[in-house]
Order: sequence, then C-alpha cells, then structure tokens
Amino acid sequence: MIYSKIPLAQTVVSLCKSKGVKHIVISPGSRNAPLTLGFTNDSFFKCYSIIDERCAAFFALGIAQQLQEPTAVVCTSGSALLNYYPAVAEAYYSNIPLVVLSADRPKNLIDVGDGQTINQKNVFESHALFSIDLKLDLKDEKHIHANENVPVLVKVEDRFERLLGLQKNIQTNNEEEINMAINMAIMKKGPVHINIPFDEPLYDVVEKQTVSPKTIEAVAKPHNLEDYVLQSCLEQWDVSPKKMILVGVNMPNQVEMKWLDELAQDDSIIVLTESTSNLHHNGFFPSIDQLIDGLTPEEKKALQPDILITFGGLIVSKKVKQFLRNYQPAHHWHIDRKRAYDTFFCLDNHIEATPNAFFESFLPKILHYVKSHYKTKWLDVKAKRLKKHKDYIKNIPFSDLKVFNKVLKSIPDDSILQVGNSSAIRYTQLFKVNKTLEVYCNRGTSGIDGCTSTAIGCAVAREDKPTVLLTGDLSFLYDSNALWNNHIPKNFRVIIVNNQGGGIFRILPGHKDTENFDTYFETNHNYSAEHLCKMYGMAYQSVDNEDALTSALTTFFSEANQAKILEIFTPKKVNDDVLLKYFEHLKETPKEKADTDNPKK
Amino acid sequence: MIYSKIPLAQTVVSLCKSKGVKHIVISPGSRNAPLTLGFTNDSFFKCYSIIDERCAAFFALGIAQQLQEPTAVVCTSGSALLNYYPAVAEAYYSNIPLVVLSADRPKNLIDVGDGQTINQKNVFESHALFSIDLKLDLKDEKHIHANENVPVLVKVEDRFERLLGLQKNIQTNNEEEINMAINMAIMKKGPVHINIPFDEPLYDVVEKQTVSPKTIEAVAKPHNLEDYVLQSCLEQWDVSPKKMILVGVNMPNQVEMKWLDELAQDDSIIVLTESTSNLHHNGFFPSIDQLIDGLTPEEKKALQPDILITFGGLIVSKKVKQFLRNYQPAHHWHIDRKRAYDTFFCLDNHIEATPNAFFESFLPKILHYVKSHYKTKWLDVKAKRLKKHKDYIKNIPFSDLKVFNKVLKSIPDDSILQVGNSSAIRYTQLFKVNKTLEVYCNRGTSGIDGCTSTAIGCAVAREDKPTVLLTGDLSFLYDSNALWNNHIPKNFRVIIVNNQGGGIFRILPGHKDTENFDTYFETNHNYSAEHLCKMYGMAYQSVDNEDALTSALTTFFSEANQAKILEIFTPKKVNDDVLLKYFEHLKETPKEKADTDNPKK
Repeated sequence: MIYSKIPLAQTVVSLCKSKGVKHIVISPGSRNAPLTLGFTNDSFFKCYSIIDERCAAFFALGIAQQLQEPTAVVCTSGSALLNYYPAVAEAYYSNIPLVVLSADRPKNLIDVGDGQTINQKNVFESHALFSIDLKLDLKDEKHIHANENVPVLVKVEDRFERLLGLQKNIQTNNEEEINMAINMAIMKKGPVHINIPFDEPLYDVVEKQTVSPKTIEAVAKPHNLEDYVLQSCLEQWDVSPKKMILVGVNMPNQVEMKWLDELAQDDSIIVLTESTSNLHHNGFFPSIDQLIDGLTPEEKKALQPDILITFGGLIVSKKVKQFLRNYQPAHHWHIDRKRAYDTFFCLDNHIEATPNAFFESFLPKILHYVKSHYKTKWLDVKAKRLKKHKDYIKNIPFSDLKVFNKVLKSIPDDSILQVGNSSAIRYTQLFKVNKTLEVYCNRGTSGIDGCTSTAIGCAVAREDKPTVLLTGDLSFLYDSNALWNNHIPKNFRVIIVNNQGGGIFRILPGHKDTENFDTYFETNHNYSAEHLCKMYGMAYQSVDNEDALTSALTTFFSEANQAKILEIFTPKKVNDDVLLKYFEHLKETPKEKADTDNPKK
Repeated sequence: MIYSKIPLAQTVVSLCKSKGVKHIVISPGSRNAPLTLGFTNDSFFKCYSIIDERCAAFFALGIAQQLQEPTAVVCTSGSALLNYYPAVAEAYYSNIPLVVLSADRPKNLIDVGDGQTINQKNVFESHALFSIDLKLDLKDEKHIHANENVPVLVKVEDRFERLLGLQKNIQTNNEEEINMAINMAIMKKGPVHINIPFDEPLYDVVEKQTVSPKTIEAVAKPHNLEDYVLQSCLEQWDVSPKKMILVGVNMPNQVEMKWLDELAQDDSIIVLTESTSNLHHNGFFPSIDQLIDGLTPEEKKALQPDILITFGGLIVSKKVKQFLRNYQPAHHWHIDRKRAYDTFFCLDNHIEATPNAFFESFLPKILHYVKSHYKTKWLDVKAKRLKKHKDYIKNIPFSDLKVFNKVLKSIPDDSILQVGNSSAIRYTQLFKVNKTLEVYCNRGTSGIDGCTSTAIGCAVAREDKPTVLLTGDLSFLYDSNALWNNHIPKNFRVIIVNNQGGGIFRILPGHKDTENFDTYFETNHNYSAEHLCKMYGMAYQSVDNEDALTSALTTFFSEANQAKILEIFTPKKVNDDVLLKYFEHLKETPKEKADTDNPKK
C-alpha cells in the first residue's frame, strides 16, 4: 500500500474509510495531492476524476442522494472550492450527506499574496451543517487519542459540546473534528466542510501508515415519541373531519404499505402526493396542480383541512402552497427528524420522528374513523378534473404538454427518473407517474445548475436500474460540462424538451414578444445538444413532431453501447398557450357547475 | 420610459445610473424581473444577457477590469447567486469593482420551504468588500433623504461609520446603503453584494419614476504622503547599494515614463517585471523565471537586495517568491492605496499611495546615485541567460515551449492579450512580450474557472483593440459555457495550447505515467474545441506541427466575419521534458563558470 507521507492526509483518508465514505470525487490539483494519493491507492474507495468542480459536486450529490451515504468531493486550494457552492446549498436543503474536503495552504501562506489562495475557512457557513478548519501537522505532533473506556454515545455528545464550545477556546484536535464532521453528515444528513492545510512537499509517499486515528462512532440517540405528543395529536385528530396529508420530496419505501392502506381507508383523510413523493396508492391524490387550480372560493372553503400533516422535503406545487396559505388549517403538523418549515404560517407541531415511526406509534392508537365527506368531495373534484385532463390532452397540438404526457408514459417500468428544474418538474407534476418509477429532482434550491451532473451521479450509484433524465434545454445547456465525465453508464438516457429557452417565463405575467422579453426573460436561443453529444461520445437523435417522437421512443430506451440523448424540439409560441388553456379547461364552466348542483335537472 | 412599479427596484436602477454603473450583465429569472425591467428599458445602460451565472460574473469582471468602472451582475434568487462566487473572489483579490445585485424573496418567505430560496444574506462575506441586505419596500415607506447642507465628504465618512455600526443597531435606509456599497466598489475597487428583496407582483410597470433617490458622491480623501514617511524611505535608500523593484499585476500606463527612465538609470536599482506588469523599459528585467532558476547560493547571496520595493497585484513567479523568502531584503516596502501583503515575511513599510504618486514625491528628493555594481551583476546574468534561452529555443522539437515562443511573437502589435491559468501564464512569463501588447491574467485567485469569460468581457469592453486569449485546454474546456454568449465581437481570437490535460502537473514531482497519475493528476483527455466552435458559431482550425502553425498564424489574426479559435495540439510526453531541460540548460555549466571566473584563461 502507498500512503501520503503527510500524517494529516493519512488521518483524513483513514477516517473516511472507517466511517464508510466510499465514493470519492476528485478534481485535479496539486495542493490536494496528499489526499488524492491516499484515496486512489486504497481499493476500498471508488474514486472518480471530474475536472469542473461545479459538476463534480453535483455528481457526488447524485451518488449521495441515492445511497444516502456520505460522499466526498476533494479539491485543491483557491477558487476551485467555491465552485462546489451550488451543490453544497442543494445538499443543505435536500438533506444529502456531502463531505467537502478542501486542501488549503498552511495559515502562514494565506493572505500574503500567494497564488490559488483564498479565505477557505467557513466559506459555506450559511449552508453547511458543520465547517472545520484543521490544524497543520506539526512535525512532532502527538495524536491524542480519546479515552477508550468512555462509552461511545457519551463521547459523541461530549465532543458535540466541545465543538460547539470552540469559540470559547476549548481545544479539540484534528481527529476529533474530522470524526464530528463526518458523523454530522451521517446523522443530520447534510453537507459538511473539512478544510485541510498541507505544507510542501505534497507528493511524498510512504509504504506504511504512520498514524492510527481513532474512530468515534456516529450513534444516534433513540428518539421515542413522547406519549403526551401522541396524546395531543390524538385529541386533535378525533375531532377533525377534514385531514390532509401533503407529501414533499420523499425517498421510495419510506412508509410501510400497511400504514398507507390505513390512511387510504379513512374518509376524513386525503393524501396529496407530488411526483417527487415516491408514494403511490389508488386512494391518494397525485397531480395536485391539476386538482387545485380554478377551484371557486366556496369549493376551496369546503376543502380547507382542519389538520394538515406534512412530511418529506420541499413542495413543488405553488398552487397547493397558495391554497393552504389562504385557507390555512387549524393545525399543521410536520413530521421530520431534523427540521420543520413553517411553509403555511400555521405550523403548531414539529413531530421529531420519521414518518413511518410516527404512523407506527400513532395509527394503532386511533380507535374509530371520524365520520366525514371530506375525501368524497375531493374524489369528486379529482374524477371531474381527470376526465377533463384526458379530453384536453387528446386534442392538443404537438407541444410541451403533449410531449410530457407521451414521454412519461414511455419510460420503462422500474427506471429511475431524474427531472430537471423548473419547467420539466412542473409539467411532470401534471401527470400521474408510473408507480414503478423512482422520481428525483433537485428541489432543495430548485436550481438549474446541476441537474445533469446529479442524474449522472445517480446513474453511476444505481447499477440496479437505468436512470433517465428528463430536462429542459436551459437546464441542460447550463450544466453541459456534466458530460465531461468518463463514468457515464451505457444505460443512461437523457430526454431534453427543447423549447428554445425559458418556456417557463412565458407562462408568467409579463411583456411577451417584445425584444426585451425574448432576450432577457425568455433568453431565446437556437442551440441543440447535438454538438455536445458528438464531443462527448453520446448517441444523439432529435425529433420535432409527434410521429417522429412516437417512433423514436420505441427504441430509445433499449440497450445500447453508449448513453443516449433524445432532444425534442417543441414550438415555443404554442407551448404557453396550450398550458394556459389547459388550466382554463380544467375549471368547471357555469353550465357544468349548474348541472353538478342540480344533477336531476 | 418604463419603470418597474416597485420603488426599491427604481431606487437601485436610478442609483446605478447616477453612479455610472453602465454595464449590466443580466441572468434570466423571475424574481429579478423588476431590475431587468428597469435596466433594459433605460438606454443609458448597456445590458447583456448571459445565462450561466458563473460565466456572467466573469464576463462582467472582464468589463470591469478594463474600464475600471463598477460593473453589475443581476441574478434571480436561489443558487443562481452562488455561481457568482468564483468571479467575486477573483474580483476581491484583483481589486476589480464588481457590483452583485441579487434579487431575493421577502424575509418572511425565507426558510419556510419555498423554492429557489437560500440564505443569500452575506453569502460572500469572506470575499466581498461590503455586503448589504436591503429592506423590503413598505407600501407607505418614506424615502428619507440625506440633509443636503452637510458637505459631501463628511457625509460619506459619517455614513461609513454608521454602516460599520450596523451591528449596534444604528439605522440606515436602503438608499444610503446602496450609495455606500457602490461607493465602496468605486473607491476601494472590489466586489460588493447588494441583496434586494422583492415581493410579488414582480412584472408591473409604471411610466413615471415614483422615487427620487439621493446620490451620495464617492469622494476620495486626498492622500498626501507624510514627510516623515518619505524621510525614513530616503534614509534607507541612501545607504542601500542593492535595490530591487518587483512589479506584480499592473494596468498599463500607471507610471509616467520619466520615473521609469530615472529608475532605469540608477545602477543600484533593478526593476523586475512580469508579463502582467505592463511595464516596459530596456533597462528593466522581464522573464524573471529565466533569470533566477539555477543561480548558485553564492550568486543568490550576491544578488540579495537591501531594499525590495513592490507594487501591483499578485506575483506569478514562484521562483522569485522563493528567492526573496530565502534571501530576504533588509526592508520591504509595498506601494498600494489599499493593502500590502507580507509576501516575503519581511514587509516593514506599507506606502499608501499609487506608485506614480510615490515616485513623484520621492524620486525628485534623491540627490545622488548610490555607487553600486548591483545592476551590472544582474545584467551579466541576464545576458548569459538570454543567450542560452535563444540557443535552446532554436533547437527544441515542437512542444509547448516552442509554441509559446512562436505564438507570442505572432500576436499583432497593439492587441490585448488575455492569458489563461496556469501553464499558459507560466510559459508566457519565460518570454519577453511585445511591449505594445496589454497583458492580463486572472491572478487574484489564479483559477481556471473563468478565463475565457473574462477575455470575452474584455473584448466587449475594448472596442479600440482586438483581444486575444491564449489559454490551455483544461482552462478552456472548464469555461466552455463562456461561448454561450451573443456578444462575442468578430475580432476576438482564442489560441488553445492543447496538451491533452494538465501539462502543468507533469512538471511537478510526482508519479508520472502511472494510471493514477494520468487520471487524477494529469486528467488525460482527448477533447478538442472543434464541436464547441460548431455549436457556438466560431471559426475553428487546428494544427499539430510547426509548419502548420506557422502557416496558420499568417492569417489567423486578420479580419474575419466571426471570432476564431486556433487549437494547437502539442505532444504531451515531450512538453515536460523540454521544459525541465530548458531550466537545466539555463544554468551555467562548471566549465562556463570557470571561464567566467577567469575570463583570460
């Protein structure tokens, strides 16, 4: 075995190994050579070389998103690190364990005018769970080990306190800090930043490890729900005939089927899901935007919940957010181990548990269903809307809406679907997605900056299923360096819905079809992915009408020797009209309304 | 005229106008619509639409670098802003006035789980001169105006203090803060961040401006050098027979010719310049790396300065840094209005003036030259090295070194040369550059992340001269989105020296020719710029031998209907050998040494 001669590099690599940080995404550089030497010479690690740090970090995010394991990015000193920031912020808001390892110069060479040197310390402060700035190895530094007799759990907590007390000058050592940072990423699921100073020489190696850093286990305190919490929930529950469960971004298989069945059976409960909820039940309500837009104030009043229960990450649907802010529930409970956002300005209960643990403790305690027409009312809306949806889709011209309908139906069972921001995920939301798909989208910051890189990271991490990225043109072009990646698997597929620039802005109120609008809001362009595919060795085909699309989709997903891109050009000036009329169409006309109110007439 | 209906948007736009922030680089979005409406509807502003915020900010940096005027970047809320960070850090270390205008949600919609929302406040804290977080317009907000009777200078300083006192809850208003931030960018030359919350509706416009914000002028206090400072300098000067002036990154025409002549006449002074110093005189010493490498300890001792005077930005040459750290001068003076880095750990005088002002005050006070052989000794080294340099270059095979020699000679007089990081600028340093060229390189952070975008910004800002970018392959591919830009002028030229990945790492000690090295250090690749040129409509040609290069260079710079790229493929495994042997060759052999010591033998 070969190790960097620098003890601190050995310590970082060794602790990554003992804590199961297995996937290491390295960007080239010289200052980080001690880490690169360590990681690439130990076959425990799966290393990847990605040059553009912005892409590298989103690629790592894609891996960590799928494996839910801390995944490391390694960069050299200087502005390289700053290019990680978009992915760090996404990891922060999407609860993804990303471990940033930045090499740095020794303190005495910072702010003295040396090249490739910035103030790396705490640079992600607003969007990292934890940032540490390690101390340079001293030649005779003793590696202080923790007392082995202290029980692990107590040690962790003790160290937490010591670290929190850093400003009070309580001493910690590098080993403890690294342990803490990685434990934080594991336990609290989010990004951490470990800044690591190295002095020259950087390339020296040794054949035996000279340090043996102590691993401090990440032990989560069991978190039982207190009886009084459950009791107060039960009291509210029993008197509420209108209960809404709204699920945000959620990994598949987080809630046992028996609890979903139980929720679906209760007439006082409706469960609203998004494409990114990865939660399917015939009794639930997907395609929220289809349901809510155009309800009359009376209808909305009737559908206003008494209790709103949310779990999962961020909500895509603006319409449901607006609805619930205007028609607030009396109570809002959010179920999450880590945090609860007061999205609707009426949060009154943060239940610190996983959704499954909560349902397991809570649902068996419910002794009877509350008599209610709440679900029936919603089912009525759903049935009408779905019929109208189908009628409308059948008759529209070739357009974004038509394309999404068609493409979503064509994706093979048991694929992973990564969706780009923001039009792509908004369109996807309008359809009921095949329940064998897993659906992901970077909704932490909802950025367009790393959708392709994330999807590639996902494809690499998940060899069990093929990954399909469904994205818009701007998002794809923005992250074009994502394709500068030697790790893209053959079964990776990209579908670009190219509406020539920012179709999403056309839907917003504004000043369409002026030169200003075209340039600064819609950002018109005529680029395609064709040249990029040639450059990076991906198969490419494009279509611009329905027949060609139908034909292309028959073979696009079949096995091939290389990853493939299908680019679908849609008519820019038709798309927004089709979408706006879609929402118009969903609404009940006065005549339909009258028929509904007097069905016998 | 059309204005955003939102008063705060009007205030920002109006103050940008009154303070001469003319160039506005806008990235698309919805939250920033009020600013986009304001800027694009006033012909005072020159607006650019660039989608990738990382490129947008470097493009703006290129404009601001050239014009030395505050240049604005405008983005929507969320991770868009974070993509500005690499350019913000470059601006910070390169003293370039970059004004970041980020649209944000109102405070009550931050951290409640809304999309495209991060903690934007102070996000560049470590690398911005000044960050402000404006307050949302209240419907009935009174725009408090400053008292007009107070003299401007005092007001500025007073406000500075008030702003610095923000943590003490001293109230300031939006108008004052915007004035302060832009004044700071102008006076202190660097990046500032103005975070601007807007509430919906975002697209409403009015035909008359409803606010009239007060402009607070940026008035710099005249900064006379104190007599006692000059006196102490003179005392040291008079007793020092070995004086070295080392010039870092420096704009052209910063020092009057008469002072340069005077410095060149003094035998006790040598002036070392870099390619980025933009300072030329026959009596000066360019190509530092050529001079210093391989000097014996005795020679170095003899060449050690008594006084080192530095001015300009960061120093590229690692060799001169190492030399001066090991052979420290007794005194180090740095001349700069803003800051002085202790690069050689012996700084004892920060002269707060422009170099020209200092020389103007100081040089006339010197009454006699100190008798010295210092310059003669250096001239001797220079003459020998230059001869060896020429001999060597004549006989080497086609390689990076050969290519840089050839290309640098071929660039037409009076061009602007933008050089990429890091091999490109290091190779360039080995040659005496045509003195009619202006030479620039992003040496603030020495990143490869925005060299092309910066060069394009420069080309757009400087219609008076053609801009040539000379860059390496990794740097070019990293910033490939730079070409996604509708503003590239026809006379823009790019020369890519493509050594298939990270040639610079080959020169460093390491483990060459292993798979690990190729992948993680050198980052081998076989990509070219050809497909990108096709995609973005630039002319492309490539060469891979000397004759073809010679031929290509005869027409490459001539007028054309589109911007052009010339890609020069060099042999990866030859380049490092040629360079290492170059430095070997420069050294005196023992025989040459003996001949020198006994010239009559």
